[in-house]
Amino acid sequence: MKLLEDRIRRDGVVKAGGVLKVDSFLNHQLDPALFMELAKEWKRLYEGTEINKILTIEASGIALATAAGLEFGVPVVFAKKAQSINLDGEMLTTKIRSFTHGRVYDVIVSKKYLKPGDRVLIIDDFLANGAALEGLISLVESSGAALTGVGIAIEKGFQPGGALIRSRGVRVESLAIVESMDENTGEIIFRN
Amino acid sequence: MKLLEDRIRRDGVVKAGGVLKVDSFLNHQLDPALFMELAKEWKRLYEGTEINKILTIEASGIALATAAGLEFGVPVVFAKKAQSINLDGEMLTTKIRSFTHGRVYDVIVSKKYLKPGDRVLIIDDFLANGAALEGLISLVESSGAALTGVGIAIEKGFQPGGALIRSRGVRVESLAIVESMDENTGEIIFRN
Repeated sequence: MKLLEDRIRRDGVVKAGGVLKVDSFLNHQLDPALFMELAKEWKRLYEGTEINKILTIEASGIALATAAGLEFGVPVVFAKKAQSINLDGEMLTTKIRSFTHGRVYDVIVSKKYLKPGDRVLIIDDFLANGAALEGLISLVESSGAALTGVGIAIEKGFQPGGALIRSRGVRVESLAIVESMDENTGEIIFRN
Repeated sequence: MKLLEDRIRRDGVVKAGGVLKVDSFLNHQLDPALFMELAKEWKRLYEGTEINKILTIEASGIALATAAGLEFGVPVVFAKKAQSINLDGEMLTTKIRSFTHGRVYDVIVSKKYLKPGDRVLIIDDFLANGAALEGLISLVESSGAALTGVGIAIEKGFQPGGALIRSRGVRVESLAIVESMDENTGEIIFRN
């Protein structure tokens, strides 16, 4: 999606270790108007697919998922990263390894909000090694809901997550796929 | 706001210890269309006030703040609850005591996204003892930005946060203020 690629080229910063900083518009400061454009693109891509729920994971995914929920006209559920005393009832749980934070955390969703009959679109800001997405897919599978597909803002095409998850037959629509980045020149090449 | 009060009466669950569970529409499963209505109400209340940034705190605040960002046409910044290696540069920090989770955590915002000249509206889902809001206000103050006001979805009027923060001259617009709740009958009384 040209709009997103242009924005990444303009405002993204390539750092050492394959890090792409987009915290000026995607995951610390947020551009809600841009997010509505991304949501419209996911809506176009999933036209004709029945979807009645958006699933994401806290924290950065929530804003994009909210935009998608508005565009699709469906509720959003966000998976939580730790047990909270304000969450009761039965929970679906999984474990996700965070490469960013170097630890494994529990992720939970209430069985009340993800269940058989739901047709779920997963939305997240990044897809890199695929750990978070694998966790969300596992939550959908254990809930008995149907996974209709995934919408990602930025996929790091040089990391294995996208290929791995597509190879399992899951539809993944990434709006910008970074093929390679050069931390010295700052150049970013997108997959066509 | 009658729309929100009606929704709380319909879908909220009163639990022991002054807990109001609204995770079916506000802080686990989210209703984006409702959030746009709340955002329109904050926009109406702050009509004539110059605002160029929305500040919230992860996680539950992000969806409401995104709706408000769309309605006000301004960027959203969310304060993060822990140091992340993907956040570099200078940070504004404060500490917030979570009564829900029984611990104190560090909260950070990049100085790039909150600075002198900004006119900030703080948005959050709940106001109870006021700890999270005090932390966000402290971040705004230390940034040199101007605090124009606060927009809260649900205020627990029987807890001290709202009175405390208003007594300091901060404008707080809560769209539903719970005066009292009865965990036995489930009855919820709102402030007029």
